[in-house]
Amino acid sequence: MQKETPAELRQRIRAGQHTGHTSGYCAGYVQCNVAILPKAWANEFLQFCQLNPKPCPIVAMASSPGATKIPSIAPDFDIRTDVPRYRLWENGRLDKEVTDISSVWRDDLVTFLLGCSFSFEEALLADGLEIRNITEGVNVPMYDTNMTCQPAGRLHGNMVVSMRPFKPADAIRMIQICSRFPSVHGSPVHFGNPEDIGISNINKPDYGDAVSIRAGEVPVFTACGVTPQAAIMAAKPEFCITHSPGCMVVTDMSNSKLAIL
Amino acid sequence: MQKETPAELRQRIRAGQHTGHTSGYCAGYVQCNVAILPKAWANEFLQFCQLNPKPCPIVAMASSPGATKIPSIAPDFDIRTDVPRYRLWENGRLDKEVTDISSVWRDDLVTFLLGCSFSFEEALLADGLEIRNITEGVNVPMYDTNMTCQPAGRLHGNMVVSMRPFKPADAIRMIQICSRFPSVHGSPVHFGNPEDIGISNINKPDYGDAVSIRAGEVPVFTACGVTPQAAIMAAKPEFCITHSPGCMVVTDMSNSKLAIL
Repeated sequence: MQKETPAELRQRIRAGQHTGHTSGYCAGYVQCNVAILPKAWANEFLQFCQLNPKPCPIVAMASSPGATKIPSIAPDFDIRTDVPRYRLWENGRLDKEVTDISSVWRDDLVTFLLGCSFSFEEALLADGLEIRNITEGVNVPMYDTNMTCQPAGRLHGNMVVSMRPFKPADAIRMIQICSRFPSVHGSPVHFGNPEDIGISNINKPDYGDAVSIRAGEVPVFTACGVTPQAAIMAAKPEFCITHSPGCMVVTDMSNSKLAIL
Repeated sequence: MQKETPAELRQRIRAGQHTGHTSGYCAGYVQCNVAILPKAWANEFLQFCQLNPKPCPIVAMASSPGATKIPSIAPDFDIRTDVPRYRLWENGRLDKEVTDISSVWRDDLVTFLLGCSFSFEEALLADGLEIRNITEGVNVPMYDTNMTCQPAGRLHGNMVVSMRPFKPADAIRMIQICSRFPSVHGSPVHFGNPEDIGISNINKPDYGDAVSIRAGEVPVFTACGVTPQAAIMAAKPEFCITHSPGCMVVTDMSNSKLAIL
Protein backbone atom coordinates (compact mmCIF):
# COMPACT_ATOMS: atom_id res chain seq x y z
CA MET A 1 0.00 0.00 0.00
CA GLN A 2 1.23 3.45 -0.93
CA LYS A 3 1.93 5.55 2.16
CA GLU A 4 -0.55 8.42 2.52
CA THR A 5 1.01 11.86 2.02
CA PRO A 6 0.17 14.80 4.29
CA ALA A 7 -1.73 16.41 1.38
CA GLU A 8 -3.80 13.25 0.92
CA LEU A 9 -4.58 13.02 4.63
CA ARG A 10 -5.53 16.71 4.74
CA GLN A 11 -7.84 16.12 1.75
CA ARG A 12 -9.60 13.31 3.65
CA ILE A 13 -9.82 15.49 6.76
CA ARG A 14 -11.25 18.35 4.68
CA ALA A 15 -13.87 15.97 3.24
CA GLY A 16 -14.90 14.85 6.73
CA GLN A 17 -13.52 11.33 6.15
CA HIS A 18 -10.95 11.48 8.95
CA THR A 19 -12.15 13.02 12.21
CA GLY A 20 -9.95 11.27 14.78
CA HIS A 21 -6.42 11.54 16.11
CA THR A 22 -3.36 11.85 13.86
CA SER A 23 -0.81 9.95 15.95
CA GLY A 24 1.09 7.56 13.71
CA TYR A 25 -0.18 9.14 10.48
CA CYS A 26 2.27 10.53 7.89
CA ALA A 27 5.38 9.44 9.76
CA GLY A 28 8.26 11.84 9.20
CA TYR A 29 6.13 14.98 8.92
CA VAL A 30 5.67 17.74 11.49
CA GLN A 31 2.33 17.84 13.30
CA CYS A 32 1.21 20.95 15.18
CA ASN A 33 -0.93 22.03 18.09
CA VAL A 34 -3.50 24.70 17.24
CA ALA A 35 -4.50 27.90 19.07
CA ILE A 36 -6.89 30.35 17.39
CA LEU A 37 -7.53 33.59 19.26
CA PRO A 38 -9.37 36.85 18.63
CA LYS A 39 -7.09 39.70 17.55
CA ALA A 40 -7.60 41.34 20.97
CA TRP A 41 -5.67 38.41 22.51
CA ALA A 42 -3.26 37.57 19.71
CA ASN A 43 -0.46 40.00 20.56
CA GLU A 44 -0.43 38.89 24.18
CA PHE A 45 -0.35 35.24 23.13
CA LEU A 46 2.49 35.90 20.70
CA GLN A 47 4.43 37.63 23.46
CA PHE A 48 3.69 34.78 25.90
CA CYS A 49 5.09 32.29 23.36
CA GLN A 50 8.13 34.47 22.72
CA LEU A 51 8.84 34.64 26.46
CA ASN A 52 8.28 30.92 27.01
CA PRO A 53 9.69 29.21 23.93
CA LYS A 54 10.19 25.79 25.51
CA PRO A 55 6.51 25.10 26.31
CA CYS A 56 5.20 27.37 23.49
CA PRO A 57 7.33 26.88 20.35
CA ILE A 58 5.63 28.63 17.41
CA VAL A 59 6.18 26.70 14.19
CA ALA A 60 3.98 29.02 12.11
CA MET A 61 1.27 31.68 12.46
CA ALA A 62 -1.22 33.30 10.13
CA SER A 63 0.09 36.45 8.51
CA SER A 64 -2.91 38.58 9.58
CA PRO A 65 -6.24 38.36 11.44
CA GLY A 66 -8.79 36.42 9.45
CA ALA A 67 -6.16 34.74 7.26
CA THR A 68 -7.05 31.08 6.74
CA LYS A 69 -3.98 30.01 4.76
CA ILE A 70 -0.49 29.37 6.12
CA PRO A 71 1.49 28.52 2.96
CA SER A 72 4.75 27.94 4.83
CA ILE A 73 3.42 24.68 6.29
CA ALA A 74 1.49 23.50 3.18
CA PRO A 75 0.31 25.34 0.03
CA ASP A 76 -3.26 24.01 0.24
CA PHE A 77 -3.69 24.33 4.02
CA ASP A 78 -6.92 25.92 5.29
CA ILE A 79 -7.29 26.29 9.05
CA ARG A 80 -11.11 26.15 8.80
CA THR A 81 -11.26 22.61 7.45
CA ASP A 82 -7.90 20.86 7.86
CA VAL A 83 -7.93 19.92 11.54
CA PRO A 84 -9.72 16.61 12.20
CA ARG A 85 -11.49 17.86 15.31
CA TYR A 86 -11.67 21.31 16.93
CA ARG A 87 -12.70 22.52 20.36
CA LEU A 88 -14.68 25.74 20.67
CA TRP A 89 -14.25 27.58 23.96
CA GLU A 90 -16.32 30.38 25.48
CA ASN A 91 -15.03 32.31 28.47
CA GLY A 92 -12.58 29.51 29.27
CA ARG A 93 -15.22 26.77 29.18
CA LEU A 94 -15.42 24.05 26.52
CA ASP A 95 -18.51 24.74 24.44
CA LYS A 96 -18.39 21.92 21.89
CA GLU A 97 -16.28 19.84 19.53
CA VAL A 98 -16.71 20.21 15.77
CA THR A 99 -14.93 18.92 12.64
CA ASP A 100 -15.16 22.14 10.61
CA ILE A 101 -15.06 25.76 11.77
CA SER A 102 -16.11 27.47 8.51
CA SER A 103 -19.44 28.47 10.01
CA VAL A 104 -17.91 30.08 13.11
CA TRP A 105 -14.92 31.67 11.40
CA ARG A 106 -14.43 35.40 12.07
CA ASP A 107 -12.28 38.01 10.40
CA ASP A 108 -10.58 38.84 13.70
CA LEU A 109 -9.27 35.32 14.43
CA VAL A 110 -5.50 34.75 14.47
CA THR A 111 -4.13 31.22 14.03
CA PHE A 112 -1.04 29.89 15.80
CA LEU A 113 0.54 26.49 15.13
CA LEU A 114 2.83 25.18 17.86
CA GLY A 115 5.38 22.37 17.80
CA CYS A 116 4.43 18.99 19.21
CA SER A 117 6.34 16.17 20.88
CA PHE A 118 5.52 13.73 18.05
CA SER A 119 8.51 15.18 16.17
CA PHE A 120 11.13 14.56 18.85
CA GLU A 121 9.61 11.20 19.79
CA GLU A 122 10.19 10.11 16.20
CA ALA A 123 13.84 11.18 16.45
CA LEU A 124 14.24 9.27 19.73
CA LEU A 125 12.70 6.10 18.29
CA ALA A 126 14.93 6.40 15.21
CA ASP A 127 17.92 6.39 17.57
CA GLY A 128 16.73 3.17 19.19
CA LEU A 129 15.45 4.64 22.45
CA GLU A 130 12.31 3.22 24.01
CA ILE A 131 9.47 5.65 24.71
CA ARG A 132 7.45 4.17 27.51
CA ASN A 133 4.07 5.73 26.67
CA ILE A 134 4.38 4.35 23.13
CA THR A 135 5.46 0.90 24.38
CA GLU A 136 2.55 0.83 26.80
CA GLY A 137 0.11 2.23 24.23
CA VAL A 138 -1.09 5.14 26.35
CA ASN A 139 -1.00 8.94 26.23
CA VAL A 140 2.16 10.54 27.65
CA PRO A 141 1.80 11.51 31.34
CA MET A 142 1.67 15.29 31.89
CA TYR A 143 1.90 17.25 35.11
CA ASP A 144 1.31 20.74 36.44
CA THR A 145 4.50 22.12 38.00
CA ASN A 146 5.58 24.98 40.23
CA MET A 147 7.79 26.38 37.44
CA THR A 148 6.35 29.80 36.63
CA CYS A 149 6.05 30.96 33.03
CA GLN A 150 7.01 34.53 32.15
CA PRO A 151 3.66 36.38 32.09
CA ALA A 152 2.46 38.46 29.14
CA GLY A 153 -0.51 40.73 29.77
CA ARG A 154 -3.47 38.63 30.84
CA LEU A 155 -1.67 35.38 30.11
CA HIS A 156 0.22 33.71 32.93
CA GLY A 157 0.54 30.35 34.60
CA ASN A 158 2.89 27.52 35.49
CA MET A 159 4.62 25.22 33.06
CA VAL A 160 3.03 21.88 32.25
CA VAL A 161 5.54 19.11 31.55
CA SER A 162 5.42 15.68 29.94
CA MET A 163 7.42 12.81 31.44
CA ARG A 164 9.31 9.93 29.86
CA PRO A 165 11.44 7.54 31.97
CA PHE A 166 14.92 6.52 30.82
CA LYS A 167 18.03 4.88 32.21
CA PRO A 168 20.60 7.66 32.86
CA ALA A 169 22.78 6.81 29.84
CA ASP A 170 19.67 6.89 27.61
CA ALA A 171 18.54 10.13 29.27
CA ILE A 172 21.89 11.70 28.31
CA ARG A 173 21.32 10.61 24.70
CA MET A 174 17.73 11.86 24.85
CA ILE A 175 18.97 15.28 26.03
CA GLN A 176 21.40 15.42 23.09
CA ILE A 177 18.71 14.52 20.55
CA CYS A 178 16.02 16.82 21.96
CA SER A 179 18.51 19.70 22.07
CA ARG A 180 18.55 19.56 18.26
CA PHE A 181 14.80 20.30 18.18
CA PRO A 182 14.13 23.65 19.92
CA SER A 183 10.92 24.12 17.95
CA VAL A 184 9.41 21.01 19.52
CA HIS A 185 10.14 21.86 23.16
CA GLY A 186 13.93 21.35 22.97
CA SER A 187 16.00 19.93 25.81
CA PRO A 188 14.27 18.67 28.97
CA VAL A 189 13.67 21.09 31.84
CA HIS A 190 14.24 18.63 34.70
CA PHE A 191 15.03 15.02 35.55
CA GLY A 192 14.97 13.00 38.74
CA ASN A 193 13.07 14.06 41.85
CA PRO A 194 9.53 15.12 40.82
CA GLU A 195 9.04 17.13 44.03
CA ASP A 196 11.82 19.52 42.95
CA ILE A 197 9.35 20.96 40.42
CA GLY A 198 6.20 20.63 42.49
CA ILE A 199 4.96 17.22 41.36
CA SER A 200 3.72 15.38 44.44
CA ASN A 201 2.69 12.05 42.91
CA ILE A 202 4.40 10.83 39.75
CA ASN A 203 1.81 8.04 39.45
CA LYS A 204 -1.06 10.53 39.22
CA PRO A 205 -0.49 12.72 36.16
CA ASP A 206 -2.71 15.80 35.82
CA TYR A 207 -3.24 15.01 32.11
CA GLY A 208 -2.68 11.85 30.07
CA ASP A 209 -1.89 8.46 31.56
CA ALA A 210 0.59 7.08 34.09
CA VAL A 211 3.44 4.94 32.76
CA SER A 212 5.77 2.44 34.46
CA ILE A 213 9.11 3.68 35.81
CA ARG A 214 11.43 0.68 36.12
CA ALA A 215 14.32 0.11 38.52
CA GLY A 216 17.35 2.15 37.48
CA GLU A 217 15.30 4.63 35.45
CA VAL A 218 14.79 8.33 36.14
CA PRO A 219 11.82 10.41 35.06
CA VAL A 220 12.82 13.04 32.47
CA PHE A 221 10.55 16.08 32.19
CA THR A 222 10.02 18.11 29.01
CA ALA A 223 8.07 21.36 28.59
CA CYS A 224 4.65 20.56 27.17
CA GLY A 225 2.27 22.20 24.71
CA VAL A 226 -0.55 21.96 27.23
CA THR A 227 1.12 24.96 28.93
CA PRO A 228 -0.21 27.63 26.52
CA GLN A 229 -3.65 26.03 26.45
CA ALA A 230 -3.80 26.09 30.26
CA ALA A 231 -2.73 29.76 30.27
CA ILE A 232 -5.42 30.63 27.72
CA MET A 233 -8.16 28.75 29.60
CA ALA A 234 -7.19 30.43 32.87
CA ALA A 235 -7.40 33.86 31.21
CA LYS A 236 -10.89 33.06 29.88
CA PRO A 237 -11.04 34.84 26.51
CA GLU A 238 -14.66 35.28 25.41
CA PHE A 239 -13.98 32.98 22.44
CA CYS A 240 -11.18 30.78 21.18
CA ILE A 241 -10.58 27.59 19.25
CA THR A 242 -8.04 24.80 19.76
CA HIS A 243 -7.54 21.36 18.25
CA SER A 244 -8.99 18.42 20.15
CA PRO A 245 -6.11 16.62 21.94
CA GLY A 246 -4.23 14.34 19.54
CA CYS A 247 -6.11 15.66 16.49
CA MET A 248 -3.34 17.79 15.04
CA VAL A 249 -2.50 19.80 11.96
CA VAL A 250 -0.40 17.57 9.68
CA THR A 251 2.06 19.70 7.72
CA ASP A 252 4.22 19.15 4.63
CA MET A 253 7.36 19.94 6.68
CA SER A 254 9.63 17.00 7.43
CA ASN A 255 10.59 16.48 11.07
CA SER A 256 14.25 16.36 10.12
CA LYS A 257 14.01 19.95 8.87
CA LEU A 258 13.27 21.06 12.43
CA ALA A 259 16.70 19.90 13.59
CA ILE A 260 18.97 22.89 14.14
CA LEU A 261 22.09 20.81 13.55
CA MET B 1 50.83 42.25 33.42
CA GLN B 2 50.85 40.65 29.99
CA LYS B 3 49.23 37.22 29.98
CA GLU B 4 51.77 34.45 29.43
CA THR B 5 51.40 32.66 26.09
CA PRO B 6 51.65 28.87 25.79
CA ALA B 7 54.97 29.33 23.93
CA GLU B 8 56.32 31.46 26.80
CA LEU B 9 55.20 28.95 29.44
CA ARG B 10 56.73 26.06 27.46
CA GLN B 11 59.98 28.05 27.25
CA ARG B 12 60.03 28.41 31.06
CA ILE B 13 59.20 24.71 31.46
CA ARG B 14 61.99 23.80 29.01
CA ALA B 15 64.42 25.95 31.05
CA GLY B 16 63.44 24.19 34.27
CA GLN B 17 61.82 27.35 35.67
CA HIS B 18 58.32 25.86 35.94
CA THR B 19 58.15 22.33 37.32
CA GLY B 20 54.68 22.27 38.91
CA HIS B 21 51.09 21.86 37.82
CA THR B 22 49.59 23.79 34.90
CA SER B 23 46.02 24.22 36.16
CA GLY B 24 44.96 27.84 35.59
CA TYR B 25 47.87 28.62 33.29
CA CYS B 26 47.29 29.89 29.73
CA ALA B 27 43.50 30.02 30.04
CA GLY B 28 41.80 29.27 26.74
CA TYR B 29 44.40 26.80 25.48
CA VAL B 30 44.17 23.02 25.30
CA GLN B 31 46.19 21.05 27.83
CA CYS B 32 46.92 17.36 27.34
CA ASN B 33 47.61 14.19 29.28
CA VAL B 34 50.78 12.36 28.20
CA ALA B 35 51.42 8.66 27.56
CA ILE B 36 54.75 7.57 26.08
CA LEU B 37 55.10 3.87 25.27
CA PRO B 38 57.64 1.63 23.58
CA LYS B 39 56.78 0.78 19.98
CA ALA B 40 55.95 -2.79 21.06
CA TRP B 41 52.98 -1.36 23.00
CA ALA B 42 52.04 1.61 20.83
CA ASN B 43 49.72 -0.12 18.36
CA GLU B 44 47.79 -1.78 21.15
CA PHE B 45 47.46 1.53 22.96
CA LEU B 46 46.29 3.28 19.80
CA GLN B 47 43.68 0.56 19.29
CA PHE B 48 42.59 0.79 22.95
CA CYS B 49 42.06 4.55 22.52
CA GLN B 50 40.20 4.04 19.27
CA LEU B 51 37.87 1.52 20.93
CA ASN B 52 37.34 3.69 24.03
CA PRO B 53 37.22 7.28 22.75
CA LYS B 54 35.36 8.74 25.73
CA PRO B 55 38.00 7.96 28.38
CA CYS B 56 40.91 7.98 25.86
CA PRO B 57 40.46 10.87 23.41
CA ILE B 58 43.65 11.26 21.34
CA VAL B 59 44.31 14.92 20.56
CA ALA B 60 47.65 14.24 18.85
CA MET B 61 50.34 11.59 18.53
CA ALA B 62 53.92 11.51 17.30
CA SER B 63 54.20 10.63 13.62
CA SER B 64 56.69 7.81 14.23
CA PRO B 65 58.64 6.02 17.01
CA GLY B 66 61.37 8.24 18.37
CA ALA B 67 59.78 11.44 17.04
CA THR B 68 60.03 14.21 19.64
CA LYS B 69 58.10 16.91 17.77
CA ILE B 70 54.33 17.15 17.33
CA PRO B 71 53.97 20.29 15.18
CA SER B 72 50.18 20.09 15.08
CA ILE B 73 49.96 21.15 18.73
CA ALA B 74 52.83 23.71 18.67
CA PRO B 75 55.68 24.28 16.21
CA ASP B 76 58.39 24.38 18.89
CA PHE B 77 57.05 21.50 21.03
CA ASP B 78 59.54 18.88 22.21
CA ILE B 79 58.17 15.99 24.28
CA ARG B 80 61.54 15.51 26.04
CA THR B 81 61.58 18.92 27.74
CA ASP B 82 58.14 20.55 27.56
CA VAL B 83 56.24 18.71 30.29
CA PRO B 84 56.78 20.26 33.75
CA ARG B 85 57.09 16.90 35.50
CA TYR B 86 57.21 13.34 34.18
CA ARG B 87 56.72 9.96 35.79
CA LEU B 88 58.96 7.07 34.75
CA TRP B 89 57.42 3.62 35.17
CA GLU B 90 59.06 0.20 35.12
CA ASN B 91 56.96 -2.94 34.92
CA GLY B 92 53.90 -1.01 36.09
CA ARG B 93 55.67 0.46 39.14
CA LEU B 94 56.51 4.15 39.57
CA ASP B 95 60.31 4.46 39.37
CA LYS B 96 60.78 8.22 39.77
CA GLU B 97 59.64 11.71 38.83
CA VAL B 98 61.85 13.90 36.65
CA THR B 99 61.52 17.27 34.89
CA ASP B 100 63.35 16.32 31.68
CA ILE B 101 63.44 12.98 29.84
CA SER B 102 66.23 13.77 27.35
CA SER B 103 68.61 11.39 29.09
CA VAL B 104 66.16 8.46 29.04
CA TRP B 105 64.73 9.07 25.57
CA ARG B 106 64.75 6.07 23.22
CA ASP B 107 64.22 5.79 19.50
CA ASP B 108 61.41 3.30 20.01
CA LEU B 109 59.21 5.57 22.18
CA VAL B 110 55.84 6.70 20.81
CA THR B 111 54.15 9.77 22.28
CA PHE B 112 50.39 10.13 22.73
CA LEU B 113 48.65 13.32 23.89
CA LEU B 114 45.13 12.86 25.25
CA GLY B 115 42.40 15.41 25.90
CA CYS B 116 41.85 16.67 29.44
CA SER B 117 38.85 17.91 31.38
CA PHE B 118 40.38 21.39 31.79
CA SER B 119 39.00 22.23 28.34
CA PHE B 120 35.37 21.39 29.05
CA GLU B 121 35.54 22.83 32.57
CA GLU B 122 36.50 26.15 30.99
CA ALA B 123 33.48 25.96 28.68
CA LEU B 124 31.21 25.17 31.65
CA LEU B 125 32.56 28.09 33.70
CA ALA B 126 32.17 30.41 30.70
CA ASP B 127 28.49 29.43 30.63
CA GLY B 128 28.08 30.38 34.29
CA LEU B 129 27.95 26.87 35.75
CA GLU B 130 29.64 26.21 39.08
CA ILE B 131 32.24 23.43 39.17
CA ARG B 132 32.37 22.18 42.72
CA ASN B 133 35.98 20.96 42.78
CA ILE B 134 37.09 24.40 41.55
CA THR B 135 34.87 26.22 44.07
CA GLU B 136 36.22 24.05 46.86
CA GLY B 137 39.81 24.31 45.63
CA VAL B 138 40.45 20.57 45.43
CA ASN B 139 41.18 17.98 42.75
CA VAL B 140 38.14 16.52 41.00
CA PRO B 141 36.91 13.26 42.61
CA MET B 142 37.53 10.17 40.43
CA TYR B 143 36.21 6.64 40.84
CA ASP B 144 36.82 3.14 39.53
CA THR B 145 33.63 1.74 37.99
CA ASN B 146 32.24 -1.58 36.80
CA MET B 147 31.95 -0.24 33.23
CA THR B 148 34.26 -2.41 31.15
CA CYS B 149 36.44 -0.85 28.46
CA GLN B 150 36.77 -2.59 25.10
CA PRO B 151 40.06 -4.52 25.42
CA ALA B 152 42.91 -4.25 22.89
CA GLY B 153 45.64 -6.87 23.10
CA ARG B 154 47.22 -6.73 26.54
CA LEU B 155 45.34 -3.54 27.47
CA HIS B 156 42.06 -3.89 29.30
CA GLY B 157 40.30 -2.59 32.38
CA ASN B 158 37.29 -0.71 33.67
CA MET B 159 36.47 2.91 33.02
CA VAL B 160 37.54 5.52 35.57
CA VAL B 161 35.14 8.46 35.85
CA SER B 162 35.30 11.95 37.31
CA MET B 163 32.30 13.39 39.14
CA ARG B 164 30.83 16.88 39.29
CA PRO B 165 27.54 17.59 41.11
CA PHE B 166 24.88 19.79 39.51
CA LYS B 167 21.22 20.63 39.95
CA PRO B 168 19.27 18.74 37.24
CA ALA B 169 18.65 21.84 35.05
CA ASP B 170 22.38 22.64 35.19
CA ALA B 171 23.22 18.99 34.49
CA ILE B 172 21.12 19.20 31.30
CA ARG B 173 23.08 22.29 30.24
CA MET B 174 26.36 20.57 31.19
CA ILE B 175 25.42 17.61 28.97
CA GLN B 176 24.74 19.98 26.06
CA ILE B 177 28.06 21.79 26.47
CA CYS B 178 30.18 18.66 27.00
CA SER B 179 28.57 17.04 23.93
CA ARG B 180 30.30 19.72 21.85
CA PHE B 181 33.71 18.49 23.07
CA PRO B 182 34.15 14.81 22.13
CA SER B 183 37.94 15.16 22.19
CA VAL B 184 37.86 16.01 25.89
CA HIS B 185 35.69 13.10 27.05
CA GLY B 186 32.41 14.34 25.50
CA SER B 187 29.02 13.86 27.11
CA PRO B 188 28.78 12.27 30.57
CA VAL B 189 28.42 8.50 30.86
CA HIS B 190 26.09 8.43 33.88
CA PHE B 191 24.28 10.57 36.42
CA GLY B 192 22.44 9.84 39.63
CA ASN B 193 22.81 6.62 41.58
CA PRO B 194 26.56 5.83 41.94
CA GLU B 195 25.88 2.14 42.65
CA ASP B 196 24.49 1.73 39.12
CA ILE B 197 28.09 1.92 37.85
CA GLY B 198 29.76 0.12 40.75
CA ILE B 199 30.67 3.06 43.00
CA SER B 200 29.91 2.03 46.57
CA ASN B 201 30.84 5.24 48.42
CA ILE B 202 30.60 8.58 46.65
CA ASN B 203 32.40 10.25 49.55
CA LYS B 204 35.49 8.05 49.09
CA PRO B 205 36.87 8.68 45.62
CA ASP B 206 39.55 6.27 44.39
CA TYR B 207 41.59 9.23 43.07
CA GLY B 208 41.44 12.97 43.77
CA ASP B 209 39.36 14.53 46.53
CA ALA B 210 35.77 14.28 47.73
CA VAL B 211 33.50 17.29 47.08
CA SER B 212 30.19 18.38 48.62
CA ILE B 213 26.96 17.26 46.99
CA ARG B 214 24.21 19.62 48.12
CA ALA B 215 20.47 19.01 48.49
CA GLY B 216 18.77 18.88 45.09
CA GLU B 217 22.00 18.08 43.25
CA VAL B 218 22.85 14.89 41.38
CA PRO B 219 26.34 13.55 40.75
CA VAL B 220 27.23 13.62 37.03
CA PHE B 221 29.94 11.18 35.91
CA THR B 222 32.29 11.77 32.97
CA ALA B 223 34.82 9.37 31.45
CA CYS B 224 38.26 10.21 32.81
CA GLY B 225 41.79 10.24 31.42
CA VAL B 226 42.99 8.12 34.34
CA THR B 227 41.37 5.19 32.49
CA PRO B 228 44.19 4.67 29.95
CA GLN B 229 46.85 5.15 32.62
CA ALA B 230 45.19 2.51 34.80
CA ALA B 231 45.03 0.12 31.84
CA ILE B 232 48.71 0.68 31.08
CA MET B 233 49.81 0.20 34.68
CA ALA B 234 47.78 -3.00 34.97
CA ALA B 235 49.44 -4.36 31.81
CA LYS B 236 52.89 -3.59 33.25
CA PRO B 237 54.96 -2.60 30.20
CA GLU B 238 58.67 -2.89 30.99
CA PHE B 239 59.01 0.88 30.54
CA CYS B 240 56.74 3.85 29.98
CA ILE B 241 56.47 7.54 30.76
CA THR B 242 53.49 9.68 31.73
CA HIS B 243 53.06 13.23 32.95
CA SER B 244 52.81 13.76 36.70
CA PRO B 245 49.12 14.41 37.58
CA GLY B 246 48.18 18.02 36.86
CA CYS B 247 51.49 18.75 35.11
CA MET B 248 50.25 18.79 31.54
CA VAL B 249 51.38 19.62 28.04
CA VAL B 250 50.20 23.16 27.26
CA THR B 251 49.43 23.46 23.54
CA ASP B 252 48.91 26.36 21.13
CA MET B 253 45.41 25.04 20.28
CA SER B 254 42.51 27.07 21.62
CA ASN B 255 39.87 25.17 23.60
CA SER B 256 37.16 26.63 21.39
CA LYS B 257 38.70 24.87 18.38
CA LEU B 258 37.88 21.53 20.01
CA ALA B 259 34.15 22.25 19.84
CA ILE B 260 32.58 20.19 17.07
CA LEU B 261 29.74 22.67 16.65
